[in-house]
Parts: sequence; C-alpha cells; structure tokens
Amino acid sequence: MIDLRSDTVTKPTEVMRRAAYEAEVGDDVYGEDPTVNKLEEMAADLLGKEAALFVTSGTQGNQLAALTHARPGNEVILEANSHIFQYEGGAFSVFSGVQTRTIQGNRGAMNPSDVAAAIRGDDVHEPETSLICLENTHNKAGGAIVPLENMQAIYQIAKENQVAVHLDGARLFNAVIASGISAKEYASYTDTVQFCLSKGLGAPVGSIIAGEERFIKRARKWRKRLGGGLRQAGIIAAPGIVALRDNVERLTEDHQHASELAEGLLNIRNLSLEAIVETNIVLMNVKETGLTAKEFLLKLKDQGVLAVPFGPYTVRFVTNYGVKKEDIIKALVAVQAIV
Amino acid sequence: MIDLRSDTVTKPTEVMRRAAYEAEVGDDVYGEDPTVNKLEEMAADLLGKEAALFVTSGTQGNQLAALTHARPGNEVILEANSHIFQYEGGAFSVFSGVQTRTIQGNRGAMNPSDVAAAIRGDDVHEPETSLICLENTHNKAGGAIVPLENMQAIYQIAKENQVAVHLDGARLFNAVIASGISAKEYASYTDTVQFCLSKGLGAPVGSIIAGEERFIKRARKWRKRLGGGLRQAGIIAAPGIVALRDNVERLTEDHQHASELAEGLLNIRNLSLEAIVETNIVLMNVKETGLTAKEFLLKLKDQGVLAVPFGPYTVRFVTNYGVKKEDIIKALVAVQAIV
Amino acid sequence: MIDLRSDTVTKPTEVMRRAAYEAEVGDDVYGEDPTVNKLEEMAADLLGKEAALFVTSGTQGNQLAALTHARPGNEVILEANSHIFQYEGGAFSVFSGVQTRTIQGNRGAMNPSDVAAAIRGDDVHEPETSLICLENTHNKAGGAIVPLENMQAIYQIAKENQVAVHLDGARLFNAVIASGISAKEYASYTDTVQFCLSKGLGAPVGSIIAGEERFIKRARKWRKRLGGGLRQAGIIAAPGIVALRDNVERLTEDHQHASELAEGLLNIRNLSLEAIVETNIVLMNVKETGLTAKEFLLKLKDQGVLAVPFGPYTVRFVTNYGVKKEDIIKALVAVQAIV
Amino acid sequence: MIDLRSDTVTKPTEVMRRAAYEAEVGDDVYGEDPTVNKLEEMAADLLGKEAALFVTSGTQGNQLAALTHARPGNEVILEANSHIFQYEGGAFSVFSGVQTRTIQGNRGAMNPSDVAAAIRGDDVHEPETSLICLENTHNKAGGAIVPLENMQAIYQIAKENQVAVHLDGARLFNAVIASGISAKEYASYTDTVQFCLSKGLGAPVGSIIAGEERFIKRARKWRKRLGGGLRQAGIIAAPGIVALRDNVERLTEDHQHASELAEGLLNIRNLSLEAIVETNIVLMNVKETGLTAKEFLLKLKDQGVLAVPFGPYTVRFVTNYGVKKEDIIKALVAVQAIV
Repeated sequence: MIDLRSDTVTKPTEVMRRAAYEAEVGDDVYGEDPTVNKLEEMAADLLGKEAALFVTSGTQGNQLAALTHARPGNEVILEANSHIFQYEGGAFSVFSGVQTRTIQGNRGAMNPSDVAAAIRGDDVHEPETSLICLENTHNKAGGAIVPLENMQAIYQIAKENQVAVHLDGARLFNAVIASGISAKEYASYTDTVQFCLSKGLGAPVGSIIAGEERFIKRARKWRKRLGGGLRQAGIIAAPGIVALRDNVERLTEDHQHASELAEGLLNIRNLSLEAIVETNIVLMNVKETGLTAKEFLLKLKDQGVLAVPFGPYTVRFVTNYGVKKEDIIKALVAVQAIV
Repeated sequence: MIDLRSDTVTKPTEVMRRAAYEAEVGDDVYGEDPTVNKLEEMAADLLGKEAALFVTSGTQGNQLAALTHARPGNEVILEANSHIFQYEGGAFSVFSGVQTRTIQGNRGAMNPSDVAAAIRGDDVHEPETSLICLENTHNKAGGAIVPLENMQAIYQIAKENQVAVHLDGARLFNAVIASGISAKEYASYTDTVQFCLSKGLGAPVGSIIAGEERFIKRARKWRKRLGGGLRQAGIIAAPGIVALRDNVERLTEDHQHASELAEGLLNIRNLSLEAIVETNIVLMNVKETGLTAKEFLLKLKDQGVLAVPFGPYTVRFVTNYGVKKEDIIKALVAVQAIV
Repeated sequence: MIDLRSDTVTKPTEVMRRAAYEAEVGDDVYGEDPTVNKLEEMAADLLGKEAALFVTSGTQGNQLAALTHARPGNEVILEANSHIFQYEGGAFSVFSGVQTRTIQGNRGAMNPSDVAAAIRGDDVHEPETSLICLENTHNKAGGAIVPLENMQAIYQIAKENQVAVHLDGARLFNAVIASGISAKEYASYTDTVQFCLSKGLGAPVGSIIAGEERFIKRARKWRKRLGGGLRQAGIIAAPGIVALRDNVERLTEDHQHASELAEGLLNIRNLSLEAIVETNIVLMNVKETGLTAKEFLLKLKDQGVLAVPFGPYTVRFVTNYGVKKEDIIKALVAVQAIV
Repeated sequence: MIDLRSDTVTKPTEVMRRAAYEAEVGDDVYGEDPTVNKLEEMAADLLGKEAALFVTSGTQGNQLAALTHARPGNEVILEANSHIFQYEGGAFSVFSGVQTRTIQGNRGAMNPSDVAAAIRGDDVHEPETSLICLENTHNKAGGAIVPLENMQAIYQIAKENQVAVHLDGARLFNAVIASGISAKEYASYTDTVQFCLSKGLGAPVGSIIAGEERFIKRARKWRKRLGGGLRQAGIIAAPGIVALRDNVERLTEDHQHASELAEGLLNIRNLSLEAIVETNIVLMNVKETGLTAKEFLLKLKDQGVLAVPFGPYTVRFVTNYGVKKEDIIKALVAVQAIV
C-alpha cells in the first residue's frame, strides 16, 4: 500500500528507535527526565522562546494555549477551516469555555483587517477577545504557507489590543523548509507556538509548545490536568530529538514529491487541483469524474493507494517519509486507471 | 428625549403596573405562584407546545436551550450575526461547553443547504452537532423576518439528523404581526422557542421558553442553577400576561412608525438604509455624511434623539411603545438637521 | 394552612405592592433604572462596600462570587452543609469549573485551623484555593449564627493566603437582629456578601451582592451571561427597598415565634430539637415517635401545618412574616395531636 | 541515591527498552497500531471488560471516566483523600463540570452506608449523583487494600441507584498481588477501571482504562480532545505489554521490602507508622523527633535517601523496582542516623 492519507502515518526510523532504546530517562513529573529536558531546551532555542514543554499531541498543545491564554467567556479568533476549529472536537469550548469566532481566510491566511474588526472589548454583552490562533502551514488550505507579513500584521494588531497570538504550527517546519524563513522568525510574531514532532518530522509521538517561562509554568499544570504529565517520557522524547536534528531538511523531499504528484494529476482528464501546492499536501477535486471523494477513494484503495476525503469531492494526499519517488509514479498510474 | 435605542426601554403601562399590584402570588420554586402558572400555560398554548417556563431574560431562555439540548463538546449551528453569538458574552461556550459554528445568513436566514453541510457526526475529530439556533425577527439583519419556509426547510434537515432546533424569538411577535403567520405556526418548526415579554410587548421583565414537558422539567433545574428560580414571581408575571393579552396587536403601530422613519430617512441626502424595513428596526448608514455612527449619535443626542451604533457607520433605530407618530417626525427633523 | 416550610413563602406586603406599582423605572441593562440604582446604593452603604448589584436570587449572587473570584481548576472551601454545596445543583463546578472542598463545621462555623489546613497552593498536582465561602445564618445548622470572631479568624487566614472570602448571607439580617452586630461589621470580614431581599425580609424577588467596584463591574457581566440582566427591574427593586427599610427590625418577631415554637416542642414527648434556636429556624427530630420525617409531615399537613423534611427524621420549621403568634400555638397543638 | 519517593520513578527494564525498539507500530488515531491494539485486548481480558483504551496517565484515565459517565451539574462521590480529589488539580470539576462530594474513608474504604446516604436524586436543588469513584490500593491511606466486600457493597448500592462505579486502580496490581484476588474479580464490582502500567509495573509511560465497548468508544473521543490521541504509540505500548506480562508477580518483592522497612522503622525511637503496611507504601510519622516532615526529608536526602512529605509530620516511602533489599537496610541506617 502507498499510504498518502497523512504524514501522521510516518513510522519512526531506525535511528529514532535506537534513540528510544538508549534514552536516559527520569520522572518527568519531577522534571528529572534529562532527555525531555534536552528536547525542551532544544525546541525553545529553535523557536527563540524562553521555554518549551513536551506534550503528547498537537491537540494537547493547542488546548494548553487556550487554557493558559484565555479565560472562560472570552472569544478566540481563528480561521474558519483551521484544525482547532474543525478537528479538535470542540475542545476549546468544552475545556477552556471560550467562544470560537471564525474568519474565512485566503489560503489559510486571515485578512488582518478582518481580524482587527473581529476583536471585541469589555461591553457587557460581548465576550472579550483574548486569543488569536493561526495555523501554518494550513492543512485544509492544502498545506498553504501563511506569509510572514500576514503573521506580522496580525501580531501587531493583537499587541495593540492586548490579545495573545498562538500558532498551531503542527507543520511549521514544512513552512520553514519551503519558504526559507526560520522557525525563529515565524515564532517572533507569536506569543506561543505548537509544532509536531510526529507528522513530517517522523517522531512516533509528541509535540512541543513554547513561549514565556511563566506561560510554560502555568501550561505545565494544565498539562497535568489533561493527563499529559508523563513519567519516563525520555523514551519518546529521544526520537523527538532525532526528528528535530535529522529530519527537518528532508521535508524538501516530501515537498518535491507533492509537487510531482500535483503535476501528474493536472495531466489527468477530469481532475483538478483545489489549491496551489507549496508543501506536502495535495488537494484534488474529483467532481468531474462523476465520483464522490469516498467512491473515488474506494477505487483508489483497490489500486493500492490510500488517501482521505476532505470534502464531498475533495481528496487529500499527503506526502511523507514512507513515500518514495517511485510511489508517486505508481500513485499517478493508479489514479489514471480510475479516471 | 425620543428614545429609539431599543424596544427594551419600553416602560410598563398603567395596566401592567396595576396587574403587578394585584397579582396573586406564591413561591414559584415550589410551583405555587398561580400568576406564573397562568402565564406559562398561556404561553405554551400560544406556541402549541406542551409546557413553558418563565425566565428573567431572553439570554437566560437561550442558555436553557443549550444547557438542555446539548452536551459539552457538541457544536451548535447559528447565524453569524445572531444575538446568541454576538451579544450573550460567549455564554453558550462557557456554560454549556459547546462550540459555536456560524453561518452567514441572508437577512438573518441561513441557507438550508449551508446548514445541512455544516452538520457533523461522531467522527473522533469532530464535535457532534446537537443544536441549531434560529432568530426571528433577526435583530442584526434589521428586524428581518425569517421566512416560514426557511424555518421549515432547516427543521426538516435537523430532524433527519437528530438535531434540535431552538428559536430565539425575542421579537417573534413582531414577525407574527408583520407576516400574519401565527406564533404556533412558527413554533411548529422548532423544538423550543424563547420569546420576550419585555421588548415590544412592554412587560418590565421576563421571557418565556417553551417546549416538551421533559425539556421544561430539565430546563427548570438549569434555571435554578443560573439563579433564575424566583419566589413571588407573580409580581412580574402579571405584567407579562397583560403584555401577551393586550400588546401583541399594537406592534403594528411600531412597524408603521419604523416604516415612516425609513421613508423619511430615504429622502435625506447622504443617508441610506442597510436593510428593508419589515418590522420595528431601521438600520441607517451614515458613511456618506463623513461621520462615524458614534459621531452621528452624539449630534443626534444633542437634538434630543437617542439611537445606538450597530457597526462603524451603522445606526440602529428601534420603534417602541414610548415613541409616537409625532416623535418620528421630530426624529426625522433632528436627523435632517445634522446632515 | 400555617406555612412553616420556609421564609421564602413570605408574600409581599401592601406597602411593597404599592412600591412596585409606583416605582420609577428605566432599562437597568443601560444602568438607567433609578429604583435599582437606589437599592444598590442603599445596600452597598448598609454593608460598607463600594458597590452592590441586584440579582434575581441568592443562588445567582453566589454564582457571581465564584465566577468572579475564582478561575477554573481552583478549589473553593465551604462548609459541608452549606446551601451552596447542598442546594445549588452543583452550579459552582459546572459554571465556574471549581472543585468544592467541604469542611464539617460546628453549628455552621468551620474551625479556622481546618480552613488553614485546607488551603492549597500552586503545586502541579493541586487546585489552588482561591475562595472561601461562609454562610450566616446557617440554614442546615438550624439558623445558627456564625460568630463574628469565627469570621474574623477565617478572614485573616484568607488574607494571609491571598484567598477571597464570600459570605452567603441569604439570612444575614437574621444574624444581625439576633446578635446585635451590624451588617457592616459582619461584612468587614468578607470580600463579598450576598443577602436575600426575599426570605424573612419579605420582598417578592431578589438578592444583593456587594463588594469592591471592580468586582461588581465584572460580576455585572457574568450576571448578563446568566440571564440576570433585567430591563425595568425597578418593579421588583422597589419592594426590595421597602424590605430593607421596613422589615429588618421585624425579624425579632420571627425569632420570638421560633423560640416559642421550640419551647413548646420540648414539652412534647418523643420530640427533640437538633439545634439550639437562635433565629427563625427550628429543627425537630421525630425519630422517637416511630415516624420518619416524611410520614410526620403528611400527618402534620392533615392538621393544617406545613413544614419540610431536612433529613430522614428531621423536620424543619421556619417562622416568617405570614405566621402569627396564634399560629405557633396552633402548630404546637397540631404536633401534639400527632404524637 | 536510594529513591523511595514513588514507584513512578521506576525506570524501564532492558526488556522493555528492547520491546520499544522492536515494536510494530501504526497510526493509533486510525486504530492501526498493532502493539497498542494488542495491549488493549490483553488489558481488557485481564479485567474481564469488553474493551480497553491506552491513555498517557492515570489522571487521563480518571478524567475519561468523569467525562464519559457524568454530565455537568452531576455530583461524584469519592473518598476524601483519594488521588482524584487531592492530586488531579480539580480537573473533574473544570473539565467535566461535576461537583465532588467526599466521604472520609477508613483505610481508603468508604462506608457503604455513607455512600448510600450521599446519593442524590433529581430534586431541583440538588446535583444528581452519577458516579462513584473508588481507589485501590489507596495511596493516601498508605497503600491500603480496599476489601473486595466493600467494593461489592458499594457497587450494589450504585446499581440500585443507576450510578456508575469507576475504580482508580493506579496500583490495582499491588492489591491483586497482596490479596490474591484477581484483577478480574476486583473489576467485576466496577463499570470502569483505570490502572497504571507505569508505577510498580515499571513501564515508562501509560495507563489503561477498561469498560463496556460503548463506554470506550465515547472515551476515545474524549481522549482525542484531551490530546491523548497518539500516533505510533506502539513504542510505549510495547513496554506496557512487558509490564503486564513480566512485572506483576514481582510486586511481591516491593511489598516484602516495604514490610521490612516498616519493621525496621518500628524499632527506631520516636518514629511511628501511620498505617498498617499491606503493599508497597510506608507512611512514617516523625512528629516525636521534633522535626517536620520537610526537615526530616532534607536530612534524609543528605544521607542518600529520597522520600516525600505526605502531611506536616508524615513521610511517605514507596518501594519500587529500583530499590533492592540492601537499599532498605541502608535506608534504615540513614533514618536511624537522623533520629
């Protein structure tokens, strides 16, 4: 099977497994796991933030942002197709008690003037805005890179209004590699950043959230409440270190493969792309084939290729470490066979 | 002062005051206030629902809908400019733990196919949709009447998906009077309805929520938690009975006044209306005057007329019981004087 | 029927009804109801607090205390039989997200050293204590007066630990009248106080919460979310003013009646009192009669007397404005007839 | 250093590390991690439950119980010194919106008649009881085993009242080994069980929650919201399988060591035990030494032995895999040296 469902399916490398095997560990609830501590320092440095915290998933990192930045009855501004709004089970509202206010973006980027217009104050009728969440790269927009200038403009608006900015950077390093802009530069227009060690970077488990020391101290307590306080977490932090050290550059490959996949698809009759391909995600529209996305995917599976539906007629492909150049060619053949 | 800020400023009539003075009362937490019981029965009948509950405000009635119909982690679909989303302090999220999913409507009416597309199921990533909220008349859309067929279409979609429908009918009787469609008919395409006895109907305090017996039983307990369990509430229920008995028909007057105000404004240079006037709300755009809404309102106050800003360049006028035909004429003169 | 179920059954007096009838009113959401404003100032003065807020019930006032003083994940210390813990539907946890930590008191008064030992800090495992709630007089302890020194000692501990103190003073004026200590003096050992205008003071609806200006400002917004933002609330605030002006002193009568009732019961075979009677509540134990409280109450109702069960063998009587000296004598005859 | 602070400090064995290294993995959010699936089946079988779910900590497993069994505004009965109430940051209230109602137990076991008396119904004033939480072995009670008959009696009361029973069995296998009663038998008097693979069983990370299929399906979604949906979790599930397969029986050693430690301490002047030692926890009282627990522990650390304070004069020792017989002797020498 050629698995293009997600980069979350990436399996850990031999080097990662060995790192897990050999990891020096301790009880991280006591702050005594040297591997976790090393990973957290490494991540904070990389992002130019005071401190970082290892969490078990991007969703958990995002929850910590809301739990720590906001108070119940606040409003959070976020893009209408963001992962937080679409795919985290409404967790912001249930755990943090915040109202989600969505803005329709353009390739994942919210218009700064829309953001400015959406900020609300302390009128007795209105939820105060306390947090803006960005997503870069933006999954639903087809792995689109939110431009640095867009982040900068929104950050400035936020600061003028005493509002925090959190970046859901689950795939931040895809943006970094594709744009040549450093993680630190992206992070400079945020208060907190979450990024995933799993997904394209290939670690088996885990994400990072980084920000000011006092933020991380409070987030650590919220992590404990969520059940994210682990013991000998070095076992999974060690592959995370490998991911950051060895696997960032290789995202270029995934982007190359996605680009090749996209080009190939464009040459197939009745298929179209829903978004320009900048990183490792390809959104294909199958409406003209007369099939729904789900029907198309069933046929594709029969041909040995896996992908996921992302709308009634949208199929999402995500290139990843387990997918080689020849797999892309095979995938194109499979698609061609259906159409 | 001619007060066109809102119909919430309506003061109780002599008849209402006398009803309060003479009201037979009891302890309503024990269910023993005969006046409250009478009002609740009257309201349930009027809406064709099994039972009704007296609450202290429209906001409280709406909260009961979310608290009773939904569970934390659910998603609620509602119009992007609805009162619940815009003006209830994010209370749905903080008290009920639900995520708000907004759809931009047309004159307050959501497109049924947008609603259908927004309903979500039990996928592990997604909040289940358990409630759709409608608003009729729609305040932000300028007192627009949501068409019965729209409500019917949405209700059908809801029922096909085991989703509840709640109507924020704070100004339902404005729709009833203007459209000639009965409250019962509107209510037939909902599971629960909230309407206000204050606002245009002129009672000093209170709203009604109506639905199935078992809904009301559970809502009653939630009302107690919110602090809405009152004692000798007959004192305020009595004017509510007068409001329903005597003041529904007279909304015609408010509509007539709003219509006259709108016509008059159209004849004034540099002013435009933002919405067709169907009931008692007039939205005027002042951008062409070179003033912001707030600046315009300050000048208007100097002329003895009160209204509220409803956007950077939008002024909202609401006709109400305290505003007579001659006040409309004076208000137009005042506006003219500014422009 | 002689109604000794609760002082909440008290019906408004002719003077109150007239006050409602004549009340000057305005839209209180805009802060324009002069009668509400007058009541709030009067109440703030009486308690020696900067500001006060009219709310629709004691439960609502208590919720505002938790919503404003505490944050989710905090712990609130309160007496094991307090009204907040026993009779507010778990609302502190559901709306404010706080954990309730109960301490068994003695006649409603928690031992200050127990309170001190229960306060928790910022360890990653522990909810921080942010609020202590007192109740005076204490309902479940039989209308017991919590001694001023007890309040003082707890307040001092609280301040040493940056913890707020809220007083559920639903029946504070019963303590005031019985002890001769002023409301202001009691309130001086609290950050916020809630007291009821209904209950013994006889207003049909409403309570007050008082504290610092900035507390009240934030509480006002939370009140709006709870649906407690009313319009022409002067209609019910006016009787509240009468209650504070005319009905405080007359609580002496209720206390005298309770004392007479208690004495009479002590002379009846097989009955005992569960608590010394200090104010207007009498807790009678019926176990020796061979009847449960519920069985006893059914028989009592047949004799024309109403009271409520307060445990398997405990019957609670509450004297109130509607109960005269001769009713107490009749009630004792009725009880005697059963035993 | 001899580390007797907790069994959570246990480091993974060589066999566990190898298991992690070699683990067959997949994306567990898709349900495709064969190692996780194997662990979950193994755990469900062991407990005689339909299904099980791998979670990242005991706290997370306990949260899932409240989130799934209860609704906001419900009440949960639990022991006054239980881990959930004492050490989970008030998470039950903040995430599930439930009120905690504590009962003081005897060696961690609540009296069934106290439990029965604490259950509440649907009165408008009261939070309905929907969940009872037990803890076995009970940490704060010194690793006490809650007797099977106690669990059975409480379970029966729960079932008569349609209330769920959840067992926080973080150290369930210590009870199993010490009592000879199987995990399945203990689990038979519960609806759901959580136990830790870390702690005495020595896995680096993770716990299990087990119950009915439909419970686990819903808990899985709540786990995602908490951020506990992992990707290639087989890396940590594999050591968990080793823990269950190889490390249960060896808890006997820990118990033996705790027993030896306790006996030794009894022979030292001015020290006393706070609880009979049944499993791997020893609670020592140091009051007679004139030192507080914290002072005592500082001196003990200087002697190369670590433990934790468990009250002003209480020191907790927990034996674990990293502590050998000779360490116990050394620890006793260290204690002796201080006293």
